[in-house]
Amino acid sequence: MQPKKTVLVAGGDLRYGYTARVLAKVYEVWAVGFTRQVLPFSEVQLASLTDKGLPKFDHLVLPIPVSEDGIHLNAPFQTQPITVTDLIPLLKPGAAVFGGKFGQTAARFRSAGLTVSDYLAEEEMSTRNAVPTAEGAVQIMLEEMPCTLHGSPVLVLGFGRIGSRLAGVLHALGAEVTVAARDVADRARAELYGCRSIPLNRINAYAGNFSAVCNTIPAKVITEETLKAIQPDALILDLASKPGGVDWDAAQALGRRVVWALSLPGKTAPFTAGEIIAKTILHMLETDEGGVMHET
Amino acid sequence: MQPKKTVLVAGGDLRYGYTARVLAKVYEVWAVGFTRQVLPFSEVQLASLTDKGLPKFDHLVLPIPVSEDGIHLNAPFQTQPITVTDLIPLLKPGAAVFGGKFGQTAARFRSAGLTVSDYLAEEEMSTRNAVPTAEGAVQIMLEEMPCTLHGSPVLVLGFGRIGSRLAGVLHALGAEVTVAARDVADRARAELYGCRSIPLNRINAYAGNFSAVCNTIPAKVITEETLKAIQPDALILDLASKPGGVDWDAAQALGRRVVWALSLPGKTAPFTAGEIIAKTILHMLETDEGGVMHET
Amino acid sequence: MQPKKTVLVAGGDLRYGYTARVLAKVYEVWAVGFTRQVLPFSEVQLASLTDKGLPKFDHLVLPIPVSEDGIHLNAPFQTQPITVTDLIPLLKPGAAVFGGKFGQTAARFRSAGLTVSDYLAEEEMSTRNAVPTAEGAVQIMLEEMPCTLHGSPVLVLGFGRIGSRLAGVLHALGAEVTVAARDVADRARAELYGCRSIPLNRINAYAGNFSAVCNTIPAKVITEETLKAIQPDALILDLASKPGGVDWDAAQALGRRVVWALSLPGKTAPFTAGEIIAKTILHMLETDEGGVMHET
Amino acid sequence: MQPKKTVLVAGGDLRYGYTARVLAKVYEVWAVGFTRQVLPFSEVQLASLTDKGLPKFDHLVLPIPVSEDGIHLNAPFQTQPITVTDLIPLLKPGAAVFGGKFGQTAARFRSAGLTVSDYLAEEEMSTRNAVPTAEGAVQIMLEEMPCTLHGSPVLVLGFGRIGSRLAGVLHALGAEVTVAARDVADRARAELYGCRSIPLNRINAYAGNFSAVCNTIPAKVITEETLKAIQPDALILDLASKPGGVDWDAAQALGRRVVWALSLPGKTAPFTAGEIIAKTILHMLETDEGGVMHET
Repeated sequence: MQPKKTVLVAGGDLRYGYTARVLAKVYEVWAVGFTRQVLPFSEVQLASLTDKGLPKFDHLVLPIPVSEDGIHLNAPFQTQPITVTDLIPLLKPGAAVFGGKFGQTAARFRSAGLTVSDYLAEEEMSTRNAVPTAEGAVQIMLEEMPCTLHGSPVLVLGFGRIGSRLAGVLHALGAEVTVAARDVADRARAELYGCRSIPLNRINAYAGNFSAVCNTIPAKVITEETLKAIQPDALILDLASKPGGVDWDAAQALGRRVVWALSLPGKTAPFTAGEIIAKTILHMLETDEGGVMHET
Repeated sequence: MQPKKTVLVAGGDLRYGYTARVLAKVYEVWAVGFTRQVLPFSEVQLASLTDKGLPKFDHLVLPIPVSEDGIHLNAPFQTQPITVTDLIPLLKPGAAVFGGKFGQTAARFRSAGLTVSDYLAEEEMSTRNAVPTAEGAVQIMLEEMPCTLHGSPVLVLGFGRIGSRLAGVLHALGAEVTVAARDVADRARAELYGCRSIPLNRINAYAGNFSAVCNTIPAKVITEETLKAIQPDALILDLASKPGGVDWDAAQALGRRVVWALSLPGKTAPFTAGEIIAKTILHMLETDEGGVMHET
Repeated sequence: MQPKKTVLVAGGDLRYGYTARVLAKVYEVWAVGFTRQVLPFSEVQLASLTDKGLPKFDHLVLPIPVSEDGIHLNAPFQTQPITVTDLIPLLKPGAAVFGGKFGQTAARFRSAGLTVSDYLAEEEMSTRNAVPTAEGAVQIMLEEMPCTLHGSPVLVLGFGRIGSRLAGVLHALGAEVTVAARDVADRARAELYGCRSIPLNRINAYAGNFSAVCNTIPAKVITEETLKAIQPDALILDLASKPGGVDWDAAQALGRRVVWALSLPGKTAPFTAGEIIAKTILHMLETDEGGVMHET
Repeated sequence: MQPKKTVLVAGGDLRYGYTARVLAKVYEVWAVGFTRQVLPFSEVQLASLTDKGLPKFDHLVLPIPVSEDGIHLNAPFQTQPITVTDLIPLLKPGAAVFGGKFGQTAARFRSAGLTVSDYLAEEEMSTRNAVPTAEGAVQIMLEEMPCTLHGSPVLVLGFGRIGSRLAGVLHALGAEVTVAARDVADRARAELYGCRSIPLNRINAYAGNFSAVCNTIPAKVITEETLKAIQPDALILDLASKPGGVDWDAAQALGRRVVWALSLPGKTAPFTAGEIIAKTILHMLETDEGGVMHET
């Protein structure tokens, strides 16, 4: 039996503690940039860069983003700053470096002969992240709305990964879900989920019928006119990444209740978010390593 | 066409504003104990007891409880206290008085020749209230748990109205739900819902497998031994009315995370809670009035 | 370790082969009235009444009904008729006899000092049987209707065990389900399931809106007037036991498509039906034997 | 108000009667190749090619396939054969011709200056057809399996449109669904639906665990080895178009129960299938006609 390959998890928030723990089911895992309090799992060995006995690592796992400034590791639990290039001597030649949003740091790893892989670009990652995102959206709706989701008319804009998950979950809770989508095949899919559907360019005609409007489209689809059509006490929830889908100035001027919800997976379900990162990396490695399946 | 019958909604919290609004679809509704801010609906006429032009009312709707002290109306939005008996002269002879938890006030109404009906005792009311209760429980779980409900093992104790609704909703969200119930037919019903089931007297053997344990049984079923079996970081959520189902002293001593959640409908979904009261009263009146259906 | 208790399964159709097999996980099981072809499971020992080496049995399991004529065992796979009283000498004193619809045979067993238990009367049995009944109804609807259940308006009469299961399954398949029930609490429960609801006495006003009408109420609720209101090409499915819920003469005269579906569990899912009988008997024995749980 | 545009529906089976009926909500619709018995809807005007008073048509709707031999219209209800080119003089210059699988007939229409559009190629069509296909598969499973789908372990191969719909519907009915898919993102999506997932290349290791195996992948994925691994009494259902996904010779030799199910929408739900064709054509025309939405 071969010795286990070694993985270094460096930096990141609470999620990465769980990422490390899941990876430790398959690999020998060390972590830098954490304290025992954040990462209380005995399966993972805590270390600091100055430790003598560190092994050379086969794989390096970095957070999202890898670095805020292109130089230092994004490591909120670390008091002493770590330079990204400090990590390179710890790795075996040709080691695989996994991270999300490398920015300029990618070039530094590549020039040291390392392979760089962005797990954020994997479809598995975005697919799985739709679950915590939709649950985070449901949490906000339950907190903000004075009525039950069961029986409430809700409009979901967009039917991509997040839109379809959110629509499905809301339907499962008994909400009366309408999906607005540009593409007729998306609208057909929404009807398969038990939702009604309308063309996206018709939302102003329908927007007044809903207790909540949830946007998942990364484009300014909730215009001033839409805002005027939405019931004054309806909740508007924007899940689209910046700049978001709501006309901010108009919403302010009209006094509409808008909740912007970004990065929900890490906020509402850090353990699951960390687990998703680990699963995605394991599957990326599996492909590289010739199809050995890691049962996680 | 006959003139509409008249209803007086007296006292209560935010919910009763919505109760009044729904009743106003069928009746002429007046309200005392509210301000226009709480009850901004033009369909309902605000009044105070000293107003001259008040009609005599066919029905009186009172809150839960009717009175805290057996003398004064439970009217949190009213600065001047109202005595329950002050309401009697406003009613027609033999008028129907609806309320929840009348206590000693029931006798006062009855001795004035009025009929007293407790809507809390109606099965419709408790059936419908399971929806906001389950949604409130889901909200707390989403807030408190670091993982998604999707994929999380959850134990629900009891399979009555609330337990079955909660188990169904959690299953719909993708949780792996196990139901513990004393009665074998309840366990069979839980399996129909897609849940696993265990006998209630076996929970100590299984309790260590769950990320959350939700109790709906109004009896001390989560004993010190059960608490010791539950994972230290699992959420324990008690939905059972006082004294609740958790051994409080043991939970304190063991440092377990317990959330007691009472009266969820009014807290998490006041509009729906008010609507449920209105629907229940309408159906009670419908029966009395010879089966005329009120489409609400 | 004690020797296993012994069970004799006597007579019945295909279902009882599977009942015997499930019981054989816990007991030593023998069967009479079967051939190896019907009961190909090596866990169960086939025997005939004239065999010498038969043990004395702790429990006897009989079919539904126990006997057609009150004298002979209901044993369709047996060419030689077996008299019910022939079974008595095979049993230990005080043995437990399980069956469904004993009729006059109950007295014969009791007078021999045996205990008689009707598993058909157990709530667990009827609860679990709602699953194969609803699936059988869905099968008929899929076979008979020219449109998908998804998107079709369907009326379900009654919201007891079968009505609620059927309504839930149809809703899960995307049908637009309306439930007609007499009791307002049942109508409220139907709404919790995502269905619309109407009072049973209003069905004639609504019956014209549906592609299928499924009755689960054991009373003549589909009268001539209702039949006239139902669309001519709608499917009418009657799941209520004889005499059924449809005015047969009127249906004939009007030429309406009515499917009477009785005893669906045994017809559509004999294995599951047999398993349900076994589980119910195991739970009945468990209670008698002091709460030892049989994991099946 | 402009006069309605005119549509000719020519040939096809029962489905096209319903297609014609749905189109008649928006257009003036005539049909050739039908009898009043097949097409009893007064909204559609039956005609024969020799009729004098026929208008010139804006649109022509043809069946799947348009022609079996490349010359004559596929018109099973027509006793006199119709040549495809006979239809051309009935159309306005530049009229739009809709059909499925035109084959060589496309060239004939195009050379007459007509536009040719294949509705089978529309994503909306294949998306919506997944519903009747999945319901047809469920019907077959209910008919063929001796156990309920509720609680039965079922393997679905593939997670495209049909695989995902089928898996979702089976899960909704309470089956324990495992999805085998090549792509890790598809496996992740299957888990979102509440299913387990395995890599497609591992099916031989798992195939023995299921009561039914349903293939939706158009490639020979159920090999002799897989067939040997599948339980002898399990149902094998192949929904993939010819040549199908099962090694036919091996299945014969092994005596396995395989059901090949092709063209399920037209067989199990002709009305819905016709409606889907109509909706798809309406949306294709809508785009052409500048986004006027046809509410159907």
